[in-house]
Order: sequence, then structure tokens, then C-alpha cells
Amino acid sequence: MREFDLIARIRERVTARGDVLLGIGDDCALLEVPVGLQLAITSDTLNAGVHFPPETRPFDIGWKSLAVNLSDLAAMGAQPAWCTLALALPEASAEFVDGFLDGFLELAAQHGVALIGGDTTAGPLSVNVTAHGFIEPGQALRRDGARAGDEVWVSGTLGDAAGALSQWRSAERVDPTLRLRLDRPVPRVALGRALRGVATSCIDISDGLLADLGHVCRASDLGARVDALPTSAALQAAFDPEQRRALQMTGGDDYELCFTAPAACCGAVLAAAEAGAVPVTRIGVIMRGKDVQAIRADGDSWKPPHAGFEHFA
Amino acid sequence: MREFDLIARIRERVTARGDVLLGIGDDCALLEVPVGLQLAITSDTLNAGVHFPPETRPFDIGWKSLAVNLSDLAAMGAQPAWCTLALALPEASAEFVDGFLDGFLELAAQHGVALIGGDTTAGPLSVNVTAHGFIEPGQALRRDGARAGDEVWVSGTLGDAAGALSQWRSAERVDPTLRLRLDRPVPRVALGRALRGVATSCIDISDGLLADLGHVCRASDLGARVDALPTSAALQAAFDPEQRRALQMTGGDDYELCFTAPAACCGAVLAAAEAGAVPVTRIGVIMRGKDVQAIRADGDSWKPPHAGFEHFA
Repeated sequence: MREFDLIARIRERVTARGDVLLGIGDDCALLEVPVGLQLAITSDTLNAGVHFPPETRPFDIGWKSLAVNLSDLAAMGAQPAWCTLALALPEASAEFVDGFLDGFLELAAQHGVALIGGDTTAGPLSVNVTAHGFIEPGQALRRDGARAGDEVWVSGTLGDAAGALSQWRSAERVDPTLRLRLDRPVPRVALGRALRGVATSCIDISDGLLADLGHVCRASDLGARVDALPTSAALQAAFDPEQRRALQMTGGDDYELCFTAPAACCGAVLAAAEAGAVPVTRIGVIMRGKDVQAIRADGDSWKPPHAGFEHFA
Repeated sequence: MREFDLIARIRERVTARGDVLLGIGDDCALLEVPVGLQLAITSDTLNAGVHFPPETRPFDIGWKSLAVNLSDLAAMGAQPAWCTLALALPEASAEFVDGFLDGFLELAAQHGVALIGGDTTAGPLSVNVTAHGFIEPGQALRRDGARAGDEVWVSGTLGDAAGALSQWRSAERVDPTLRLRLDRPVPRVALGRALRGVATSCIDISDGLLADLGHVCRASDLGARVDALPTSAALQAAFDPEQRRALQMTGGDDYELCFTAPAACCGAVLAAAEAGAVPVTRIGVIMRGKDVQAIRADGDSWKPPHAGFEHFA
């Protein structure tokens, strides 16, 4: 396959949206932002061997490359609209591209997201997606809005993706439930939308709970204490309590939302979880200070072996 | 340097814009599109060893990665506004990042473009930029608007960047004037803006004149004949006429604008060139048919050795 066959193969599978005036095929795409809404933009790259095991299925690479970006829109409370795709491939394999698009476009269709452009280049396997969404003025869930006394919540369960990665790294059998959480993160878009006007701050967990809650604390100039962790049955079965805690506190790739809300908003939070069709768990509290303290079941504080995923660390 | 130091290093050098409500540092940037304008979006990647020689200076890699994207906005007639930057680096070298930002931000400042987000990852050197601009409804310079009888124009001179690449590939001394054209393409933003309402179609020359004019012809369902080529003194001095013609017809990386306009608009085209502060040359005509014919000075047709740059070819 040549470059322009590859682009044609992508283009013919793309679906329309009323606000996409011109999609793939010109120097730029042309778009219309609805009057009265602001634009939320995020951009994330996945590199083979860094962000996913090299043998990850093309379907899952496609899914995940969009999912991590929709997760950033979700963490802002934005409604996804469009994305661009920059795909670097060692070779133009039709099989890879078709599988990749199956995953990418299945998730795009679930959220009504239009692929509007991008490029394909020769290079080591790497996928960059820039995603665009809409948000009502003043309604964005920013990192700097947490207040002392707010409760800290997370959606879903923590540590599953890191558990799969840990098993894969030690060449163990990888539990299929955990593996699915690593390969096909579910962006919590409906939850993010439902948290507008309820959450005081929000972030998605990509680098690990302590690291990401740390970003919220730094932006809000506060600290936090975490004393509970929602745990899946699969993670519980596969790791002992100390291993689990490390995976749940510092493991990345969960793409759950971590958010804060005043204690008085507990009912509204639970209603948002219902609207978002995902359980939420109260895991701690925002406090004056600078640190994120992790507290064990016995009340002692727990020190992580490392702070969370970081490139170049 | 660690990942968050690197991001901090980028963030502290970024300048503000009134329509950037929230820039680098949250899950998404928040932007405001002016009422009554549409959004133009483009995304281009440069990979080391594919899009630039590996020893290219960091300043030039930074400059070029933004320039190729601003060139796409220019080809649409759009006014640049914001960009995201996804930077994959083999190692987090402060020297590389500082040099890269010097080039990137110098060009951004020239066009009032704000860097609003992106990401930094560990991986083989690769730069993706997604650029955003504004365009008045109905004013975009699309590829599909050429009409039979329109004249074909290009800005500046052709073949210089390809000349530098050719010299570099044959391990010759690279002429510094040609090298500058390869390393620091000048996006023709002011020309693109001035061509609104004048040009019937437009494209920027990234893959080579024949290939890119071919895209215009295919989109417009027409053919073209090219019988003139603007040539720099540096290219004239360095290559014989046959070599020159191949570089000018099929060499990529010029990032000049190729556009069409009715013959009656010649005066308006020249006025646009004046406003854009770049000379333009009438190089041919749009005709019924499907092919782009290259005509030599003696009136014979010229067959290119290859069609233009293509990944995976």
C-alpha cells in the first residue's frame, strides 16, 4: 500500500457530522463551533514499547489512542466532537491499518466523534491524536478548583491496568480481565459531563492516583489524604495486599476520573455516577498542606516505592 | 531533566492570547473561537531521518515543525491562532529542548500563534504539531475550486529545498542559501490571507509541484499544463537545467503556495503578492482533462523520473 492508498482507506471509513464543513482531503479541515460554547483541546501520543507492549493488537492500539484523548475531554467535562490522527508506521500494512481503524472508529462512533484529518508518515510505530470537544463557559472541570474539606472520589476500580502490565513484564500469564483494562480503557465521558456543576476539580488517572491527585493538589495549593481504594475482583485475586496497594496508588493507565466535591454534594455525585453508568468511590479528603498522604487500613501512612509514571525518569 | 521539568520549561516560555482561556497545564486547553468565524485545523508530523536530516539543528527542527503546519493554514487562507505540540524525544536534553523552542517560538511569535498544549514522550525523535486558525465562512481556499482556463501561479521559487537535500544526500557541500530553504521554510500566511476572494483554489507545495498541483486537478476534476518555473540564483548556479527541472517539478519541502485564479484576476493576484510580500509567477493553466503536463522551454513535454515525495512508496 502507498501513502495515498492508505489515506483513501482511512477516508472512506470516516463518518460525517453536521459541524464538519470539510473533512479529510484538503490542506485543513473546516469546522464550526456551536455559538455559545468553548472549545476544549487535548493531544496525546502513544509510542510502541513505551505506552503499550509491542505485541498489542492493532484494534486495541486504535482504541486506546483515541480513548486516552477522550479521557482528557471527560476530565474537563467536555463533549467530544472531532479528532485528528497522526500515524507513523514502519510499513504501510493494510492488515494493521484496518485493525487499527476498527478499534479507533468503534470508539469514535460510540461518542459521535468525527475523524477530520491528520497525516500518515513512515517511522517507528507512534500514534498522536488531538481531540476537540465543546464545553459551556465557566463549566469546565479544572484541576485548580479543589477546596479544603472537599471529598476525593474516583470512578471504577484502580490498579487493573497496572496489574496487567506487571504480569506482562514478569512474563506471567496476563489475566484477561486486567488485560482488557490495559488495552481498552473506557473514557468516562458521560460521568465527566454529569459532574459539571458538581465537582470542584477533576483529572483523569493516566500516571497513577498519587501523581495525578498530586497535580490537582498542586494546582489548588492544597494537600490530600487517601484512605480507601476501589478494587476489582480480578486484581484482588491476582496480587497480595501490598502489591495491590502499590499498583493502585502509583500504577498508570487506569483512565478513571479522580474528582473532588464538597461533602454536601454527595447525593449529586452519586446521581452523576448513575448518569455516567459507572460506580464511584469516596477515597479521601482534600486538606490544607502540600502532600498527598496514603493511609493504610491499619491507620499507618504508606510510602510509595515511586511517585507514578514519568517519561525520562 | 524529567518529564515535568521539561513541560515546565516549555510552559514558562509560552505567551498569552486573549482567546486562550486556559493553556498548558490542565487535561485540556480551553479556547474561544470568535463569533462568525470557522475553525481550520491541520496536523503534520516530522520524523527524524524521514522529514529532516538527523543532524538538523534543534532550532530548525522547531521552526520547521510549526512552519509546515502554518503553511497548511496559509494554503486555506486561514489566520493562524493556536497549536499543540507532541514531542517524542530519545532523551530529555535541555540543550535540544531550548534550541527547539527558540525556533518554534520565534516563528510562533511572528504569527501571533499560542502554544496551548500537547505532550512530551520518550521515543525516537518525532514532532507532531496540530495547528488551528480562523477563516471567514465561504472564504476558504479549497483544492476543488479550480476552473478550466484559470491560470496557475506559485509564490517564491521552486526546487531550492530539494536542491539542498540532493546535495546533502550526495555528501556534497550544501549551498547555505538552499539549506536555509530546506531548514526554515517561510509559511506564506499573508499571501494566503490576501488571496481570499481572488484564488479559486490553493495548495502548499510539500510533496512537489506536479504531485500537489495533481491534488488540485483531481479535486477539481480537471488537468493542467505547466510551462514556467521560478528559479533562484542559488539553484541556477548549483544544478544543470535537467537536474533543476526535476528538482522543481518533483522536489518537496518548498512550502510555497500553488494557486489558481481566472486570467481576469491577474491584477488582483499581483496585489495579493504585494500584500503578502512575496513574488508570484504565472506557471501554467488549468485545462479540461486529468493530467498535469510539464512543458519544456523547447515546447516538448517532460516526463518526471518520479511523481513526488510519498511515504511507503
